[in-house]
Amino acid sequence: MSLTLADVRAAAERLRGQVLRTPVLVSEPLDEVTGCRVRLKCENLQRAGAFKLRGALNKLLTLDAGERERGVVAFSSGNHAQGVALAARLVGTTAVICMPTDAPRLKLEATRGYGAEVVFYDRQKDDREQVARAIVERTGRVLVPPYDDLAIMAGQGTAALELLEEVPELDALVVPVGGGGLIAGCATAARALRPAIRVFGVEADTANDTALSLQRGERVGIPPPTTIADGIRITIPGALTFPVVQRHVEGVLLVTDDEIRAAVRFLALRVHVVTEPTGAVAAAAVLAGRLPVPRGATVGVVLSGGNVDPDALIEILRGA
Amino acid sequence: MSLTLADVRAAAERLRGQVLRTPVLVSEPLDEVTGCRVRLKCENLQRAGAFKLRGALNKLLTLDAGERERGVVAFSSGNHAQGVALAARLVGTTAVICMPTDAPRLKLEATRGYGAEVVFYDRQKDDREQVARAIVERTGRVLVPPYDDLAIMAGQGTAALELLEEVPELDALVVPVGGGGLIAGCATAARALRPAIRVFGVEADTANDTALSLQRGERVGIPPPTTIADGIRITIPGALTFPVVQRHVEGVLLVTDDEIRAAVRFLALRVHVVTEPTGAVAAAAVLAGRLPVPRGATVGVVLSGGNVDPDALIEILRGA
Repeated sequence: MSLTLADVRAAAERLRGQVLRTPVLVSEPLDEVTGCRVRLKCENLQRAGAFKLRGALNKLLTLDAGERERGVVAFSSGNHAQGVALAARLVGTTAVICMPTDAPRLKLEATRGYGAEVVFYDRQKDDREQVARAIVERTGRVLVPPYDDLAIMAGQGTAALELLEEVPELDALVVPVGGGGLIAGCATAARALRPAIRVFGVEADTANDTALSLQRGERVGIPPPTTIADGIRITIPGALTFPVVQRHVEGVLLVTDDEIRAAVRFLALRVHVVTEPTGAVAAAAVLAGRLPVPRGATVGVVLSGGNVDPDALIEILRGA
Repeated sequence: MSLTLADVRAAAERLRGQVLRTPVLVSEPLDEVTGCRVRLKCENLQRAGAFKLRGALNKLLTLDAGERERGVVAFSSGNHAQGVALAARLVGTTAVICMPTDAPRLKLEATRGYGAEVVFYDRQKDDREQVARAIVERTGRVLVPPYDDLAIMAGQGTAALELLEEVPELDALVVPVGGGGLIAGCATAARALRPAIRVFGVEADTANDTALSLQRGERVGIPPPTTIADGIRITIPGALTFPVVQRHVEGVLLVTDDEIRAAVRFLALRVHVVTEPTGAVAAAAVLAGRLPVPRGATVGVVLSGGNVDPDALIEILRGA
């Protein structure tokens, strides 16, 4: 049982009218610097600020009446939290989100703003997955995993489906890799629609669990990474996502934190869109000249999110 | 002889495939704060970073062969410079841009980057219009005025044409006002397509020449304004633009520099787009609750440009 284009198409059908069809931007400065025809799929402009709504809402739209009645639960201090919270509101169910006690205030407020109940855990003492599972057992709520779930993966893939519909001639597609939900869905859709397309993942060089795992041919764990790209601080690829990545992804490119910062700055000052560090890693790889494609190639780049902490954004902009 | 929808449509036909059809964004945080259904027409994502390419390119595409041979000249330290420079490159002619000796380095570089020749003038000693006219007389180049020209106005109006095609149910349209080229074109298109639409201009409160002129029923000059919105530091409405504004614009709303800063910040951190201060004045008016429309109204807001100085952006983001 694996992910197919049909799953992604079914997700797109479910999501229609509820997720934004995000714009695909072109930028002359970006093309000049990279030597490619870059097409930016702007999930930083998605509802709730990141692609996460796609997967979460697709998942919630497949719940049965009893499950909707009981609601959902998720653990995340980042974009998945907001995606699940908004998805729950959209389908008319309730969400409990487990967040660390030291979660950024803005993300906490945004999650509550979408109507979710937030339950805190201590990052030092508690295992967030256990906290969430305890809630599942006590309340019968459905756990919405951040990536390792076919409905989640299919939902995330709708971003690539839209991009390929708009730019069918893509030579390559470049996607951030955390747990692998986004790239698994996107690669599945892209390679089915255009078998010759080359799909590349991008990780921070200190969060290279998927790059290592591809090299070794099996899932490899790493110590908790410290990259500025907080959305992809993952220690091991997903059990369901990794086989999809193995099949469809040509390679994972690595970028440094400084390259990520430079990309956030470039995107803000030259393209005029705000990304969070994680949201800019794919652009960072292309800007750093790491993409092994010929000059003039048409390259789709997913900007995965824009929920950046104001102080972090200021610091990045100052860093020139 | 006045501006008509047919002029704007003809401009759109000429510009097709050369200017971006910029995205129209929706933002839940913005709708929540304003109580309106806001539709952002993102000219900050336009080629060369502002709506200015539309008018400049429309003008240049109407030049005859001899004029194209001789080239064009313009005076501007801002977005008009870049718009004319890129337009000249696109039509295969040459541009001379008169800029002050103290023009921001980034804008100077961008203008040169598009292939224009830059001629400097001393802001204290020289009259930039005279500098440009001397070049016209010496070289036979065609002067491309920043706003007071029917071809320029028609080109700028294509932004509203696109917006109304995408969101035909707009109740109101809110547009920054400098010399009046953008609002004259946009109001002409919008009111022809949807006679019931209410069109509002927005000026910085210290750059209120059009607001004053509308009150007095004639063009009124003011001393050089000092607003942070450097693109609309205009001292008197255009002779051609003002009658169009009088006919089609219900009123001009005024915003303070602090309200403009707050709008730039909101757009960056909550909507994830970068605007320059001038580019955010229409959003500032809506965010400040200055728009006299009922709750739930569908409101088009033009974000006119994104070419903000990095230090200025940092300072604005820090100002929270």
